[in-house]
Amino acid sequence: MTKARGNGKKPAPAKAPETQWRTALTCIEPNKILMRGYPLDEIMGRLTFGESIYLLLMGEVPSPGIGSLMEAILVSFIDHGATPPSTLAARNTATTGAPLRACVAAGVLGFGRYHGGDIESCMQFLDAGLELVRKGASYKDAATTIVERCIEAGEAIPGFGHRFHTRDPRAARLFQMALELEVEAHHIQMIRAVELVAGALPDGHAVPVNIDGAIAAVCGDIGIPPEIANALFIISRVPGIAAQAHEERVREHPMRSIDPKEHTYDGAGQRRLPDKRR
Amino acid sequence: MTKARGNGKKPAPAKAPETQWRTALTCIEPNKILMRGYPLDEIMGRLTFGESIYLLLMGEVPSPGIGSLMEAILVSFIDHGATPPSTLAARNTATTGAPLRACVAAGVLGFGRYHGGDIESCMQFLDAGLELVRKGASYKDAATTIVERCIEAGEAIPGFGHRFHTRDPRAARLFQMALELEVEAHHIQMIRAVELVAGALPDGHAVPVNIDGAIAAVCGDIGIPPEIANALFIISRVPGIAAQAHEERVREHPMRSIDPKEHTYDGAGQRRLPDKRR
Amino acid sequence: MTKARGNGKKPAPAKAPETQWRTALTCIEPNKILMRGYPLDEIMGRLTFGESIYLLLMGEVPSPGIGSLMEAILVSFIDHGATPPSTLAARNTATTGAPLRACVAAGVLGFGRYHGGDIESCMQFLDAGLELVRKGASYKDAATTIVERCIEAGEAIPGFGHRFHTRDPRAARLFQMALELEVEAHHIQMIRAVELVAGALPDGHAVPVNIDGAIAAVCGDIGIPPEIANALFIISRVPGIAAQAHEERVREHPMRSIDPKEHTYDGAGQRRLPDKRR
Amino acid sequence: MTKARGNGKKPAPAKAPETQWRTALTCIEPNKILMRGYPLDEIMGRLTFGESIYLLLMGEVPSPGIGSLMEAILVSFIDHGATPPSTLAARNTATTGAPLRACVAAGVLGFGRYHGGDIESCMQFLDAGLELVRKGASYKDAATTIVERCIEAGEAIPGFGHRFHTRDPRAARLFQMALELEVEAHHIQMIRAVELVAGALPDGHAVPVNIDGAIAAVCGDIGIPPEIANALFIISRVPGIAAQAHEERVREHPMRSIDPKEHTYDGAGQRRLPDKRR
Repeated sequence: MTKARGNGKKPAPAKAPETQWRTALTCIEPNKILMRGYPLDEIMGRLTFGESIYLLLMGEVPSPGIGSLMEAILVSFIDHGATPPSTLAARNTATTGAPLRACVAAGVLGFGRYHGGDIESCMQFLDAGLELVRKGASYKDAATTIVERCIEAGEAIPGFGHRFHTRDPRAARLFQMALELEVEAHHIQMIRAVELVAGALPDGHAVPVNIDGAIAAVCGDIGIPPEIANALFIISRVPGIAAQAHEERVREHPMRSIDPKEHTYDGAGQRRLPDKRR
Repeated sequence: MTKARGNGKKPAPAKAPETQWRTALTCIEPNKILMRGYPLDEIMGRLTFGESIYLLLMGEVPSPGIGSLMEAILVSFIDHGATPPSTLAARNTATTGAPLRACVAAGVLGFGRYHGGDIESCMQFLDAGLELVRKGASYKDAATTIVERCIEAGEAIPGFGHRFHTRDPRAARLFQMALELEVEAHHIQMIRAVELVAGALPDGHAVPVNIDGAIAAVCGDIGIPPEIANALFIISRVPGIAAQAHEERVREHPMRSIDPKEHTYDGAGQRRLPDKRR
Repeated sequence: MTKARGNGKKPAPAKAPETQWRTALTCIEPNKILMRGYPLDEIMGRLTFGESIYLLLMGEVPSPGIGSLMEAILVSFIDHGATPPSTLAARNTATTGAPLRACVAAGVLGFGRYHGGDIESCMQFLDAGLELVRKGASYKDAATTIVERCIEAGEAIPGFGHRFHTRDPRAARLFQMALELEVEAHHIQMIRAVELVAGALPDGHAVPVNIDGAIAAVCGDIGIPPEIANALFIISRVPGIAAQAHEERVREHPMRSIDPKEHTYDGAGQRRLPDKRR
Repeated sequence: MTKARGNGKKPAPAKAPETQWRTALTCIEPNKILMRGYPLDEIMGRLTFGESIYLLLMGEVPSPGIGSLMEAILVSFIDHGATPPSTLAARNTATTGAPLRACVAAGVLGFGRYHGGDIESCMQFLDAGLELVRKGASYKDAATTIVERCIEAGEAIPGFGHRFHTRDPRAARLFQMALELEVEAHHIQMIRAVELVAGALPDGHAVPVNIDGAIAAVCGDIGIPPEIANALFIISRVPGIAAQAHEERVREHPMRSIDPKEHTYDGAGQRRLPDKRR
């Protein structure tokens, strides 16, 4: 008998496999942890969790403006109530008595093509428009062209429309922050042009930019590539999934039948942040 | 044929099942999202992601001191290099070509009894000591008693010891912050007493408080219950899992055999945070 | 910078770690695959999938009788309609557009304490009764003792009761097969004694052995240990989870709200197996 | 406050949503379980697990020949040793102390584009060739055309090549069984034509049909569509994942660093099936 080597299928690249592989994220030495070169204990108390996430994924400490947008993006997606399918997958897992980490894993698996996937496709959609602008088209003409392509293909415009909100308050706030922090640039300009074109379509109902679209545009303008934007989406919703699964575990009886329509909100009434946080 | 109702097994509680179930987390109305009563768009730009996580899990906006500790706790666990088994589960999933969310789910499933689970057991361990203090024992005597119980049961002291670090820089920093922010209280006092007792054991090597122990003590002192502390651990490591899986996807060839020992760090050299962040 | 080694926490065992680790399951050599010593291509066409599962988990080819029971155990759990929480977790994942493997993973995570976990706890429960029999008690007295322990602890009797069935047809069939195949032994005798004791309880409703209980008793009598029985449960339900998730993907529109109560069966009407299969 | 309805984003189809949704798989009534119309307790002991999987996924009891191939397909993939990335994901999850179901879920998530995904792409590849045959091409010419398309696109031929085996014993056995059971048809004929064309390529090394390719061809010939073939792959490997994770839990110490190269097989030596099973 011999020990196995490799697991099979798909020829390895022709070159001799290197014995060493590399990571540029975190260096572990005895009593020392360097994340992207910075001692982790020095980061603690000096960068927020949101800024540290940016540092880990992008490699550098964000500027104050980009750091603020990073926090806002992460906060915007943190939870959307009890009814998204990913949340219901986590709650249905919780009701079987599974531990919290299993519920979170089940929830994360539901961040699929139709849920969160719009960020990546909207970034590609906006980039297609910006390519036309670089070739000389106006924003309005470019927006018209890419919207028509969607309509011809029978596809929804990525980053637009919401079954529940006719005006997404999170998208509006994110655009306002981008304006105030002076990071608004080509991608936001393009999505606003698309909004005007889409709003004038003859199907009679306004189609608002949704939070996926807003995040796609802001990420485009601050230089975050699509797969990192996708990672941000996963990271941002994990607290919501965990909170919903935890609530299921502590408030409901096990093995119940979860009807998403039959729930009521019984938490705190609407309130304002304390003055010092406004 | 009839439609099925319920899924079987385990008798439901005797009382008639209510048709309505309740959630106190997030209220969704058309064009309005209230998290714990606060409009989500008002939270964006005003609370950080770390503070929003606290608000979502605990129900109230944290005080500035607790907010700072929350960020530090989340940052302390954000990544620990390429070799934790949970990270290797995520990297082995990534090398098959699985999407990022599947890699994150596989990684989260590895936050098991031996990985992160120490936070919860250390909180129970410290509470057992504090129970003795409430009954009149000194911290030193209480620490001696609970350490001896571990030794008699043949168990490791929860929250102590690290295979790699002899002094965990994250734990030291967290205790320093708790002292400066004046939230240090009974749990930290108890873990320090345990540290002295454990350090005097005759097995000849110092056993440091690890980051699990430090988080357990700080969470105890700021009123975070064990299962919420467990949720914080899951939330905090997701960025690291996502970053490691993303790096695997973009830097390595698919279906490779991942030997955790054979990796080298090739990222940024050690550096200091910019002056304004210190 | 140096390469990391080990991932931390929890002291390794005192002895020097061996560089070689061992597996006794499947040996892979070029052009040869031996499972438990048998060439896999020789097993194909000669052992069924159910017999091969037994061989892989238990190490030997089952006798014909045990092989038949193995098939029946696996078939008994294969699906239980659209409403078990694990199935709903898989369907909620499917509606997001996630791939089939992600839906299956989400479903498997719901095989928790309250769903399938009864097999393991029922095996321990029956073993506690058999321990009393070995010490001289009659089956009836032993059953009375272990049932009373449950009642005193306020716990349900493991392996008994079903929210939907008052007589579980799968359990009855499994016991009948065990009798015909002459593998019925002490565990089945014990669970029948428990059934008599539980049926005479003054709470006025018959509490039937459920399929978890029947599998626990049969596994006990054919020498399958609890964790392997737990593995069989996971393996047996994966086809059902996959079929339900596949049906969700092909019959329903994405991102729908899944109310478990609002479904109708529209498949084949009741029918008999072809004569030659009876 | 109002109850939420729907989870947002992506307009629902224009037609009014039906309140009832449908399933054709399993009908649950009190004391009765009908799978595809057959009472589950009547299936137990009469159909094998493999035949029941076919019935559940395809809707009808398989003919004896197709039933035998179904068993062989499921057996062929049951395990491939300790080194596939999906198995390593499961082992790395097991070493953290996670329960068996979490290890299985982590393993299933690794059935990605590069691992198992070849079945579906090979079925499409063969169908493209058969389309040419239907238009009048010979099998040899059709095979040449579709192989050249792969080469021009710089892609591997789906269903061909193995990093470890130069002749896959499972593929050979499956083709032999298809021939003996007289189900060999157009897809197998096409993959054999491709094998001849690929073997004559000037890159100097034989490229064998792998087990993905063999399953793709056999599934094509017995009328199993690609997504069901994909489900079969997931179902077939779950026992292997579970067995490997179970072995990790019982034979190795927790939180170890798993180097896939450093393992030895120490199980049963090569042996033959008992005479009566040959």
